Amino acid sequence: MVDGALRAVRADPDLHLLLVGPAEAAGALIDALDPAQRARVAVRPVRSVVRMADHPVAARSDSTVRAAVHAVRDGIADALVSAGSTGATVTAVALGLGRWPDVRRPALVATLPAVAGPVVLLDVGGSLEPRPATLTRHAVLGAAYAAVAHAVGTPRVGLLSVGTEAGKGDRARRLADPVLAAAPLPCGARYVGLVEGYDVSLGTRADVVVTDGFTGNVLLKAIEGAYAMAGGPPPGGGAPRAAALLGVAGTVVVCHGAARADDVASGIALAAHLWRRRAADQVRALLDGAGAGDPEESTDRTTDTEVPTS
Amino acid sequence: MVDGALRAVRADPDLHLLLVGPAEAAGALIDALDPAQRARVAVRPVRSVVRMADHPVAARSDSTVRAAVHAVRDGIADALVSAGSTGATVTAVALGLGRWPDVRRPALVATLPAVAGPVVLLDVGGSLEPRPATLTRHAVLGAAYAAVAHAVGTPRVGLLSVGTEAGKGDRARRLADPVLAAAPLPCGARYVGLVEGYDVSLGTRADVVVTDGFTGNVLLKAIEGAYAMAGGPPPGGGAPRAAALLGVAGTVVVCHGAARADDVASGIALAAHLWRRRAADQVRALLDGAGAGDPEESTDRTTDTEVPTS
Repeated sequence: MVDGALRAVRADPDLHLLLVGPAEAAGALIDALDPAQRARVAVRPVRSVVRMADHPVAARSDSTVRAAVHAVRDGIADALVSAGSTGATVTAVALGLGRWPDVRRPALVATLPAVAGPVVLLDVGGSLEPRPATLTRHAVLGAAYAAVAHAVGTPRVGLLSVGTEAGKGDRARRLADPVLAAAPLPCGARYVGLVEGYDVSLGTRADVVVTDGFTGNVLLKAIEGAYAMAGGPPPGGGAPRAAALLGVAGTVVVCHGAARADDVASGIALAAHLWRRRAADQVRALLDGAGAGDPEESTDRTTDTEVPTS
Repeated sequence: MVDGALRAVRADPDLHLLLVGPAEAAGALIDALDPAQRARVAVRPVRSVVRMADHPVAARSDSTVRAAVHAVRDGIADALVSAGSTGATVTAVALGLGRWPDVRRPALVATLPAVAGPVVLLDVGGSLEPRPATLTRHAVLGAAYAAVAHAVGTPRVGLLSVGTEAGKGDRARRLADPVLAAAPLPCGARYVGLVEGYDVSLGTRADVVVTDGFTGNVLLKAIEGAYAMAGGPPPGGGAPRAAALLGVAGTVVVCHGAARADDVASGIALAAHLWRRRAADQVRALLDGAGAGDPEESTDRTTDTEVPTS
């Protein structure tokens, strides 16, 4: 984690880093930086770490992720990057920074390289059992994100299913398809209907692929495994190991729980990119234009990444 | 389709083929075979084809898949291969050949090449919203299939989820995990708990990965797309474009709807392999040893691949 963070500092001369965690983990590595780089790194010592097996509400206590959220809330940091438990990070961020009023379920958004440009996949683990209203809200978020973060003009938005013919899919997809078809989308985006697994890796049919967080998470990891099997990622880059959290009042990137130094560095670079583009603010503004969220979204089933409202 | 079938005839000197479909589609290609090969190919002319957009019950009428099922039922063919609508094929087979009494939901089983050997993935599109009892039944089917069809000794069986820690996943996974942990499995198989997307492509943690048909279908196609992005499949072979249908009284292989000639040929080769190993009978016998199906399975939600009981 620290090694990756220091790589990011070396790669980006305008980046300042606040490391939040056990002080001794960072010491030796920071000493290895030259004085100019060292001046851009600070450490906020926090001992309590939320482990992967902990319940997300553990993040309410005095933990690293909570301290990092406070640093953003207090204006000491501009963005937050975490490679810890996704549920704990989402919970701590929603409590500490707040969600946008019309987004009950923040979305984890991953961008995959594909043949004709990037494919924005959401959700990849934040909301495991979304209702049609949440999928529709995520379609709006994804279209705005593709336009703002990746400069995709008039994004094509697809709903992931087992076939492209209308009516294909499970109950959740059959309910969501007509809702999505009728939803206003920002940035000239248009809904192209049902897409399939290939479309996530190849990007031929859609620039934005909307799915539930369970399928998105499993899919992203399967694609990563396939690239490893094939001897390495394609020239344009492999499956991302960092995802942006959209729908919260701040710039937040969640890295893969098994992140390597390179992954952490790319997660930090993504956070810097999003902050410099004011992506969160811009997506937020586009969301206002696309109309308020559907109240039905608030009746989503509770999942392990449920964001408590109290 | 016909080109792939004839490739299979050329590759396997003991294979006899009955082509069921419009006669004119096969004529010219059959003429290209030498007389010895031609003697192993017959055509049963049927005009009505179930299209991808048709409802599966269309397969009840006088269609190619129905005629092919009758050929197996009447002992004219030993196995059935279809590249048509999965739902229509599953419906026609269940009606015409029957399901095993303790399997309400037949499973589509795909075998992927992985680092340490094959990974058996099920379901890949037959049962989109299975209950825990169906996932457990499929775990038993998958373990028996891995042992019988791929000679995997003491298969490791995993349940696909978004993390490996107990409790990770959506409601369906959290319900199924303890049920699977308590289920008797055949062939010395053991349940290894939750596995992730990587495990499907890499096979490091499990030989059999159990999931719902929605996730399995999407996953298989995403892996196929990833191999195409990476410049081609790994040396051991790519994502399969043919799946065995388990839980029905017969040897049935379903090819990918967008199957190319090579895919059809490999689907036919798979059917021949399974029939020569008497895989369906052997899996059936192992199922008896693992105890009867849970009656809860019969309360599964209706999906578009629901098998009518009348």
